[in-house]
Amino acid sequence: MNMNIKTTAAILLCTMTTMTATAQKEFDIEQLIRGGQHYSTLTPENRYLRWWGDTPVRLDVEQCAAVNGNKETTLFTLDDVNSIIGAKTIADSIHSLFYAKFPEKGKTITAVKNSHNRYLIDWDKKKVVWQQPCDGETEAETTSDGKRTAYLSADQLYIKDENGKTTQLSQDGSREIVYGQSVHRNEFGIINGMFWSPDGNRLAYYRMDQTMVADYPQVDIFTREAEYKPDKYPMAGMTSHQVKVGVYDLKKQKNVWLETGEPDDHYLTNIAWSPDEKTVYMFELNRKQNDCRLNSYDAITGKKIKELVRETSDKYVEPMNPIQFLPWDDSKFILQSQKDGYNHIYLYDKDGTLIRQLTKGQWVVLRVVGFSKNTKEVIYESNEVSPIQSNIFAVSTETAQTRRLDDGTGWHYATLNGDGSKIIDRMSAPKTPRKINLINTADASAQVYLNAADPWQGYNQPTIECGTIKAADNATDLYYSMVKPHDFDPAKKYPVVVYVYGGPHAHNVDATWHYGVRPWSVYMAQKGYIVFSVDNRGSENRGLAFEQATFHQLGQVEMTDQMKGVEFLKSLPYTDNDRFGVYGWSFGGFMTTSLMCNYPDVFKAGVAGGPVIDWKWYEVMYGERYMGTPEDNPEGYAKSSLIGKAKNLKGKLQLISGYNDATVVPQHCLSFIEDCIENGIQPDFFFYPGEKHGVAGYKNIHLNKRITQHFEDNLK
Amino acid sequence: MNMNIKTTAAILLCTMTTMTATAQKEFDIEQLIRGGQHYSTLTPENRYLRWWGDTPVRLDVEQCAAVNGNKETTLFTLDDVNSIIGAKTIADSIHSLFYAKFPEKGKTITAVKNSHNRYLIDWDKKKVVWQQPCDGETEAETTSDGKRTAYLSADQLYIKDENGKTTQLSQDGSREIVYGQSVHRNEFGIINGMFWSPDGNRLAYYRMDQTMVADYPQVDIFTREAEYKPDKYPMAGMTSHQVKVGVYDLKKQKNVWLETGEPDDHYLTNIAWSPDEKTVYMFELNRKQNDCRLNSYDAITGKKIKELVRETSDKYVEPMNPIQFLPWDDSKFILQSQKDGYNHIYLYDKDGTLIRQLTKGQWVVLRVVGFSKNTKEVIYESNEVSPIQSNIFAVSTETAQTRRLDDGTGWHYATLNGDGSKIIDRMSAPKTPRKINLINTADASAQVYLNAADPWQGYNQPTIECGTIKAADNATDLYYSMVKPHDFDPAKKYPVVVYVYGGPHAHNVDATWHYGVRPWSVYMAQKGYIVFSVDNRGSENRGLAFEQATFHQLGQVEMTDQMKGVEFLKSLPYTDNDRFGVYGWSFGGFMTTSLMCNYPDVFKAGVAGGPVIDWKWYEVMYGERYMGTPEDNPEGYAKSSLIGKAKNLKGKLQLISGYNDATVVPQHCLSFIEDCIENGIQPDFFFYPGEKHGVAGYKNIHLNKRITQHFEDNLK
Repeated sequence: MNMNIKTTAAILLCTMTTMTATAQKEFDIEQLIRGGQHYSTLTPENRYLRWWGDTPVRLDVEQCAAVNGNKETTLFTLDDVNSIIGAKTIADSIHSLFYAKFPEKGKTITAVKNSHNRYLIDWDKKKVVWQQPCDGETEAETTSDGKRTAYLSADQLYIKDENGKTTQLSQDGSREIVYGQSVHRNEFGIINGMFWSPDGNRLAYYRMDQTMVADYPQVDIFTREAEYKPDKYPMAGMTSHQVKVGVYDLKKQKNVWLETGEPDDHYLTNIAWSPDEKTVYMFELNRKQNDCRLNSYDAITGKKIKELVRETSDKYVEPMNPIQFLPWDDSKFILQSQKDGYNHIYLYDKDGTLIRQLTKGQWVVLRVVGFSKNTKEVIYESNEVSPIQSNIFAVSTETAQTRRLDDGTGWHYATLNGDGSKIIDRMSAPKTPRKINLINTADASAQVYLNAADPWQGYNQPTIECGTIKAADNATDLYYSMVKPHDFDPAKKYPVVVYVYGGPHAHNVDATWHYGVRPWSVYMAQKGYIVFSVDNRGSENRGLAFEQATFHQLGQVEMTDQMKGVEFLKSLPYTDNDRFGVYGWSFGGFMTTSLMCNYPDVFKAGVAGGPVIDWKWYEVMYGERYMGTPEDNPEGYAKSSLIGKAKNLKGKLQLISGYNDATVVPQHCLSFIEDCIENGIQPDFFFYPGEKHGVAGYKNIHLNKRITQHFEDNLK
Repeated sequence: MNMNIKTTAAILLCTMTTMTATAQKEFDIEQLIRGGQHYSTLTPENRYLRWWGDTPVRLDVEQCAAVNGNKETTLFTLDDVNSIIGAKTIADSIHSLFYAKFPEKGKTITAVKNSHNRYLIDWDKKKVVWQQPCDGETEAETTSDGKRTAYLSADQLYIKDENGKTTQLSQDGSREIVYGQSVHRNEFGIINGMFWSPDGNRLAYYRMDQTMVADYPQVDIFTREAEYKPDKYPMAGMTSHQVKVGVYDLKKQKNVWLETGEPDDHYLTNIAWSPDEKTVYMFELNRKQNDCRLNSYDAITGKKIKELVRETSDKYVEPMNPIQFLPWDDSKFILQSQKDGYNHIYLYDKDGTLIRQLTKGQWVVLRVVGFSKNTKEVIYESNEVSPIQSNIFAVSTETAQTRRLDDGTGWHYATLNGDGSKIIDRMSAPKTPRKINLINTADASAQVYLNAADPWQGYNQPTIECGTIKAADNATDLYYSMVKPHDFDPAKKYPVVVYVYGGPHAHNVDATWHYGVRPWSVYMAQKGYIVFSVDNRGSENRGLAFEQATFHQLGQVEMTDQMKGVEFLKSLPYTDNDRFGVYGWSFGGFMTTSLMCNYPDVFKAGVAGGPVIDWKWYEVMYGERYMGTPEDNPEGYAKSSLIGKAKNLKGKLQLISGYNDATVVPQHCLSFIEDCIENGIQPDFFFYPGEKHGVAGYKNIHLNKRITQHFEDNLK
């Protein structure tokens, strides 16, 4: 077993244990698992900050406070706010200041909202300077000054201007014709469907026609008699929805449709405005997802102006971020692309001419945070230091010179003030529960605002290790984490549970607190298990080749990598080779079922939550990106399908799904159950009524107890 | 423990064991359980007989043979039939003679049918004497001469006469407007929806309007993408369907609707014709089911002629059988009623005047078989000999004198020839696997046609016992059966599974072969369990007070009786009080869940199949008969509901349901699962995709293995 360790990640292979002479407390599941009654007791202290001009403001339920170093000064309280808005009843009151906003940079204005009205409070005048009713609005998107709102009401799209004038933009909105909401099932980074122009004079919005899309028949059992609640769900290879983009001009009171043309089932993604509000930019991708164009449209006429950039692939191109114009130069924008094999930042002029590649290297830009106006830099997070870290960098748009702005450890998340001169740096590291620093962009100097205490102090803490193994290609490093019981004795033999996700756009191992191991893994370690996770090829943050190794054969390469993890585990003297289990949810449920069916002699027990069973039942966008259509890639679909493989099962598998899972629909697990029945296999099975792709709230405790019990019954 | 044994049932308490010196075979689940690959090997030999005039004919796949004593003479073969109809292809051929009919008494005509045509073959002429195409017909009902057919095609009702002339009787037939099919969800003995008059000149038929009935949202997962398959399902207290009865006159080519009046949600049941075809009789019941009238209607005008008989109750009246006119006297009919506390036969004149009660006593008429014309008797089966037997009797319509026609043992089922002078008597008894006798009605003399060998010979046979215990009222005898391992040792302690149904219109214990114990019970006994069943109050064949003890509080009295069974079991030295389990399906699933939740310290494990969880989710007809509506009987519904009682569970309960159960819809078990989740209870759960209220075919083996394993895991 090759145990190559990246020299750049010296923090790795550190073993975290707490040794104390005194008796320590045991973790309770109600503390560890989200939804538990005492959940917060084991999570590090947290604080929520938002920039008000150049001042970081701490938002809390009862007050907002200005932060200066590690000192806080109360700005106003919830009582102040309710007094100023004249709230007389509970229904009229504002109940938390977590959602207070500071729309006008440098001004003394705070935006708050109760269930009936939006308010702008001017603290200089100590009064409400503007207000507007918001009854019946859903999915509201407000302009940066807080005074214009686009919203939905009974499926129709409306705009309300600062004077309360309301314009209805759609007439035919329905369950089937959807306005102003996220399209393409939230793929391609899409999370909403209304896009205000920078100064709020125009609104771009999606219109999605899904009349031609099949309904997945969801059932609501919580009505007098169960009711049919259909859910439009286009499955791989089936007819998909048709999206277009409208632009409404508030001054001209005129709507145009961007002339995006045929075929109708293309993807219109990552809408961006030019600073002058005259041009709309989008990445447009063919249904096959291997031909991506950045196009610009005239916001007044809807006509296409130009194809600025085109990227093709023999696998797929996946635009995830809109272009962003430089705040100090309206003629230039940045875009992110994986075209050199890793996600990097490129600077273009507004006509689509590449000026320069700003970042480069065998690591990925994780997120563009924003811009530092004074230094003409782009602020971004990347894993340049280590594949499992996230650190804050700046890159000069003029020289492409980069510099690190944080301490170079762990996992950082930056929030910039308006001009990018200051950064709120939220971070954790394997031994650092949580730290919040305030960074000065210019010289990267930092002040510590919060250094949270270790909430696990006084408990029997498991040993948590991290390292790398070689992938099945014998070349690629894969990162793993391993959790061992607090009283680990290398002379004993321990049962092992492999926790797996394995799919794209996710990872399990990183340099956050405790290497990001899941609370359930800690719980299992306390019960005497070793819990192991390895991020196989196909997972995120390791570059295009790593990600696309799984193309058109989801699960296959991933399994070979997971089996390298098993090989590693079996080489350890303290693992019991007869007591291996595997657990995962969603793609991890697919991996669990795949591993149980393909390596039936290895895993004695498994729990597959919300598992994909055959990619033909998964949605068009994600499914076809990685698998093509069932018609184009029959071999890939056959190889990855678990239908027909239930007969291989030897270990005890439990399938668990939300009864109303609208992501991995119940057709998956029910079809696998059928395959089991036809082959005389007896899996365990459980439905959470009303639950979707996750199990929410207190039911999550029930779920985690259930999963635990499955291993206790079958592995111990 | 009072162990009163009915003296009339001397056969009871007999203990059935086979002792042999040689090594015996073990039962295999594939032999014992329906759906298994070798199922028939353990069932007694069987033969199918049908009367052809006065000759019993044995029907088989390849031939029809006349039976004379225990001799058989081939009448014709399948090859003969296919040669005569001129079948040239497999599609044209008839593949089995099981369905051959002999429509014209005393004549040489046989009716057969392939998928395209109906044929009448005259064996004297050795040729087809009449034929007619039948393509596209469903639910076909043919007149007694075989020449006129009423049928459905694409939801519309048609009549085809002997000359092939086709008349479409309905235009608006649909999923919502249903013609010619069973109505009222098969309650009140209803099994079909078309009723030919005696000579085939008129057709009475049901029309059911269920547009106003809620759909239960069933989902078909076996399509490309799962599909919604709504199923009209009126739940207790909700809006029900509206039924009327049409009568079509073939000569006049005229349709009338019987003027049954308001309210529309009454029940129109047990349609019967007068011998002269001029009058239609029906039992009409109000929705509350406590007021039942026998009405007559003019078949030509549809007008109501008369209310002949009325029966009311402070609980319910349940008409289950149409009136039957005496074959030798068109002015008199018999009807069955429980009005004196037991189901008995009454003779009326055609105007509704009671002539006399024909049968009487603290036992029930199980079935009216028909009439003996020569002796002017009604032939019926009753449990007069013992509550768990069925014997064949005749009662004189003139003197009400009764006489037994069979041997007075076991369970008999009679089939009369045309004039009732001869009887095919199919029977079994606890030690008799199957016997078929031919009885001469006049003198009750019998000839043995078949005496089937014991198919269990050579196997390790369990001990099967039967007896009575006192019900929770300390007065009523309840019959139980008990299966013990073949190597039963009274010095040992055995785990016990109580198999329960407990609902109306069913029983588990009778004097059929092996006291009717279920093959699964035998399988469990082989695995070392004692399996016990007791027919509690509320079950069938014990009279009205016994049945109606459960009125408006289903499950409550039944549980107290089942607990008397448990008390009896615990009093036995060889039962292990810490290892009691309970299993049942449908009403038995309700009982199982009720017992597990109400007596959590008694039952360590249970399996509830297709369980009713709250009667408000069960259908109108059955549900309201026993429980009233949720609005009228809130206390009864609350007491019997299992929602809110999951928190009591201590034993391990597995719920199993057909995913597409259209009888006890999945809302029941899913709602109980939700109650478990909310209360931190971890039941086991399984769905059989595509299956309805039972699990069919080979999947039944999977199901029975699953149930067995649950007790092996939790009781052994």
